[in-house]
Parts: sequence; structure tokens; C-alpha cells
Amino acid sequence: MRLLFAALALLMVSPVASTAQPAPERPIALALHGGAGTILRQNLTPEREAAVRAALEQALDAGYAVLLRGGTALDAVEATIRVLEESPHFNAGVGAVLTDAGTAELDAAVMDGRTRAAGAVSGITTVRSPIQLARRVMERSPHVMLVGAGAEEFAGQQGLERVTNDFFILPERREQLRRMQENRRTGFNALGVPDPSFVSPERFDAALAASPDLSGGMEHKFGTVGAVALDRDGNLAAGTSTGGMMGKKFGRVGDAPIIGAGTYADNATCAVSATGHGEYFIRAVVAHDIASIIRYTGLSLTQAASAVVHGSLVEMGGGGGVIAVDPQGRVTMPFNTPGMYRAAIDGAGNRTVAIFRD
Amino acid sequence: MRLLFAALALLMVSPVASTAQPAPERPIALALHGGAGTILRQNLTPEREAAVRAALEQALDAGYAVLLRGGTALDAVEATIRVLEESPHFNAGVGAVLTDAGTAELDAAVMDGRTRAAGAVSGITTVRSPIQLARRVMERSPHVMLVGAGAEEFAGQQGLERVTNDFFILPERREQLRRMQENRRTGFNALGVPDPSFVSPERFDAALAASPDLSGGMEHKFGTVGAVALDRDGNLAAGTSTGGMMGKKFGRVGDAPIIGAGTYADNATCAVSATGHGEYFIRAVVAHDIASIIRYTGLSLTQAASAVVHGSLVEMGGGGGVIAVDPQGRVTMPFNTPGMYRAAIDGAGNRTVAIFRD
Repeated sequence: MRLLFAALALLMVSPVASTAQPAPERPIALALHGGAGTILRQNLTPEREAAVRAALEQALDAGYAVLLRGGTALDAVEATIRVLEESPHFNAGVGAVLTDAGTAELDAAVMDGRTRAAGAVSGITTVRSPIQLARRVMERSPHVMLVGAGAEEFAGQQGLERVTNDFFILPERREQLRRMQENRRTGFNALGVPDPSFVSPERFDAALAASPDLSGGMEHKFGTVGAVALDRDGNLAAGTSTGGMMGKKFGRVGDAPIIGAGTYADNATCAVSATGHGEYFIRAVVAHDIASIIRYTGLSLTQAASAVVHGSLVEMGGGGGVIAVDPQGRVTMPFNTPGMYRAAIDGAGNRTVAIFRD
Repeated sequence: MRLLFAALALLMVSPVASTAQPAPERPIALALHGGAGTILRQNLTPEREAAVRAALEQALDAGYAVLLRGGTALDAVEATIRVLEESPHFNAGVGAVLTDAGTAELDAAVMDGRTRAAGAVSGITTVRSPIQLARRVMERSPHVMLVGAGAEEFAGQQGLERVTNDFFILPERREQLRRMQENRRTGFNALGVPDPSFVSPERFDAALAASPDLSGGMEHKFGTVGAVALDRDGNLAAGTSTGGMMGKKFGRVGDAPIIGAGTYADNATCAVSATGHGEYFIRAVVAHDIASIIRYTGLSLTQAASAVVHGSLVEMGGGGGVIAVDPQGRVTMPFNTPGMYRAAIDGAGNRTVAIFRD
């Protein structure tokens, strides 16, 4: 039944043959995101839009090249995310949002759909590639999640490339934080919307309901990068990397490094990476819920991801989106915000690079 | 259909009326655990068994009293876990296992099934009740998870009771750590079994397969306490608290504070708290998987929990167990190890306090 669907999918999803790359015998697929939020045409200069698109293309090509030469889904995910971590346009690695203390504290996770092995790190300040560290945790430690100074110590033992924290910090992020802190005194954040950091969840939720602009800063405040891949051996992988939440305090951990919430992969169902207001994604266990719907109801990847992103998450008030791929190479990238930086080449070879809803 | 099952359950599960407490009109239920592992009669002195049973009874009574007087499931879970945290017999709060550095670093999480609000903390060293702090994170911060020094700072702002780290540390835990560190040099831990902390997951898994005794230390090495409850208003809650893994390094975080893995609650399905080898519980997203099976397949709580604990987890090699309660007050406490410290009063008023498999 699945094979039939896969065959149908291969026949049906290439309406414009001239833009499609040749579909390999066994499908390979890659999808990535660079954050979701109120990304509106009027707020994005043509120059910035072009630069973001170029970065998305570059990351997509880097990961897809790995798959094309027969590399693993894990390698493709890592290669994709490392490009996004090094790009200043996204909230991960270089260009990460800053904590209340003005530092970059990075989180990342990776999961291997073949074995359901997983690695995750949080509060990273000196490791150049958090996604690389997450993978080392998965492959070279008996643990799944390491945080803070302990995770840095493990990175040291593993001989990973270290940088000073300044390496990650852009001047515009400092300015963003300065404005946020100034506004914080009045209860509003850098985007002129009620700031969640010092109010109760109830008050924040009320503010969210009352202010259509509140999600306006989501891309900046909660941005994330991520990738999912299917390799020629039929193995899936997912990874996510982020600077977390702008102005975060108290050692806050979002959904990106939480296996099941922001990152999940299982060859039996799908690989998922999420981006959005992490607290809601943790509570809804978003990535694992999508996999569970597929596994236990037989709904398709697209139906399952849509049910969570446009259903459960919207009911809870959680803005954001996901990228996901299944063992047949089908890709879905739903989001409930005005925009999500995203790109993919699905199992039929169709290439997508997009920012807005259309 | 559900009501019919509930009615049948109420009729069927009270075989020994004399030991059952009177069942209230609307069911209330509470279950707790104090860790799972190779708990064998021959290794437990009568004195220790009596002391552990007394602690389980005391925690059960503390939580159930809250429910009996109409209190919330959340209050019952917190009351139960605070007794277990203060007891020296379990790996949580006082009596926690020690890190490689000889300190106690505590994790906890709580989730409200009514709203799916959640709070979690990791790496706590000076807050007397980690479960209380997790609840404050849920109720008084906009975040779900706080770790390390940041979480401690938040505790300070909230005015929670602080203690020195020594408050949590028992002499026998120091001795346990000393033996473990001595054996570590030869690659074996305090229990004389291959130690996972410095080998690859593959080597550890190989050792696990080769050594039937490896799980022998699980109760000591991976113990956890937890509680789940159903209150008179039909609301579910779950909580978990732990010292984590004995001899842990590198800021290791286990499943207890990972929402969906060690702790999950949703009024629509069930409340779950897990105990066992945390890395596997994270990878299998155990607590949320049980809820998903109920939600998406219609299997009962007992069937769903059994499918995960005796199915997926065993396939992965993950030893441990869970306690779970559903909105009808049914309780299940499956484990795939020789024993699990556990106690419950289900919706029909049946009281259980048990350690071994029989």
C-alpha cells in the first residue's frame, strides 16, 4: 500500500518537468527551515530577501550533494545545518539571538531514524557547531542530552572546534537586545509587543490573544534552523540548531534540543524538525505527535503534520511550523505563521525555496 | 463507550472488598513509584524492605489525602513527591545519587493534564524541593524548562526554600560513588558491571547484551520518584523527581525533566511518570507514546503502557517502568525489570503497595 502511494507520488508531483531534477531510482530527499514567524514582504528588503534565499539555496545544495553521492541522511542533515549555523541570517550559530546577559547560548539536537539514537545539547557558548556537538553526544557518549559547562567539557574531550562567544554575536543582535531591555521596563519587548519574560503565562497568553502583532517578532525571537533527510538506504534523520529565545534568562531551554518536541526521526514514520514558540512545542510534543499520528492512524505525512501545526498547536496558541520527510521521500513544510524560511528537494526531485505563504 | 468501560471497571476491580477503601462517586486515583530495577528479595533486608514500604505508604497517604479533601491532582502529585524527595530511600532529593564530582544535581518535571502546561528543571543543587521548583516554573514563568544556575536564580526570585548541597547527600551515596570511581579505572562501575560513562553506546549496548547483571544496578544508578493523579474534577497530573544517573558527568540530563519522555499528562488520555535508563526513555518518548497509543488507537491505558514498556522499550534495550492513570481512575504500573517500588489507590479504591514482580 505504501509502495503504491510512493509510486503514485512519484508519478504525480512533477508537474513542471523542466524545473525538476532527475528522480533517482530510490528516492532521496532533503528539507530545511530557517525559522517561522511574521515574515512579511513589506518588512523584507529585496536585498535581504535575496540574501536569505541565497543562504537557503546554499544550505540545500550542501545537504543534497551529500545525498546525491550516496551519503547518509545524518551527514546531509549536519552539512545543511552547518551552512545555516554559519549564515548570519538565521537564529543559530553566527547570528544567534542573545540572552538577557548579552551572550549567545546555543542549543541543538540530532536524531537517527534508523536506530532512534539521539544527541542534544543546550547552553553552548564556545563550540563553533552545536549540531556537530549534538552528533558527537549521540555517537560518542552513552548519553542523549548534555547541558552547559558539562557539554562544553565533553566538546573539549572530543576536540571539536572552539570559538569565543563573540564569534556568534552580530552588532544588530546587540542592538535588538538593547532595545528589548529598554522596553522591558515597561513590559514591552524590542518589537513593541508585550514581553513574556516577566509576566505569568496567563498574562502572556492574554496579551497574545489581544495583540495580533505579538507573533510579529517570532521569527526574531524564536527562530531556529533545522533539516530532515532521506538517504538512498532509506534512512531518515532530523536535526535542529538554535540560539533559542531572545533575551532569555534563567537557563531557559526551548524545544529544539528536546527529543520528541523540536526534533524527532524514526524510519518507521518520518523525520521532523520544528521552529516556533518552543514552550508550546514542548507541551504538544510536536515532532513525536506527528510521527505517532502516522504510526497509529495511517494518515499521510502531510495530513499528520497539518493536523498538529494547524490543529493542536493553533488550539494551544503556539505559532510556528515544521519540516518533515517520510521514507518515500514525500516532504511537507506546514506553518501557521505568515512565513517560514524553507527549502526542499523531495523524493521526486522537485525543488522548493520559499519564504512567504504563497 | 468510555463511560461503559469506566462503569465496568468500577464493578470489576474490587475483588477483596475488605481491603478496599470506599469508592467515591467521581473517581479519584493516585499512583507513585520510587524507582525500578533489579530489586531482589535476597538483596533487600527485612528492615530495609519495611522502611521502603513505610515510605511508600506515607507518600501515598499524603497525596491521597489531598484528593480526598477535594484538592487538585497537581497538589496531590506535589505532596506525594515531596514525601519521596525527603525520604532517604529513593534517588531524589535527600538520598540522591551523586555526580562524578560528588555533588547532588537534581532534575524534576510536572505537567497539568487540564491545560498541558508543564514545568521542568535540571541540574538543581540548592533548592530543597525540585518538584516544587518545577511547578513554579510552570505556574510563574512563561517557560517550560530551566536548567542549572538560571533555574536556581529563578528559585531565589520565587523565594523557595534553599539548602546546602550536603543536605541531599547521604554517607552511603558517597561510598557508592567512591567504589564506582575506583572501578571506573578498569572500565567497571560500583556494581562490578561495565560502566557506560566512558565507552561508546555501541560498546555499552554490547556489554549490556553480554552481561545479565548490568541492569542489576539500575535501581541505584537510574532511580527516580514520580506520581500521577486524578482529582474529583476529572483533571490529571504527572510529576517526576530524580538525582539522575550515578556518577554522571558532562551535565547529563535524563528523561525525568523531558516532557513527553519521563513525564506527561493530558486529560484526554492519561498521566504518566517513568523510571529507568533515561536515555532509552528519551529516545522512545515513552510517556507521550503511551498517551498517543490511547489517543490514536483506542487501546486501554493498561494495553498502551504495556505495549511501550514490554514492547518498544524492551526492543531498544531500555530497562524500567512507568506508572499511569487515566480519566476513569484506572491505574497501571508495568515494568520490565525484576522490581519497581510502587504504590497506588485506583478509582475503585483498591490500595496497592508493592516492590517485587509478584
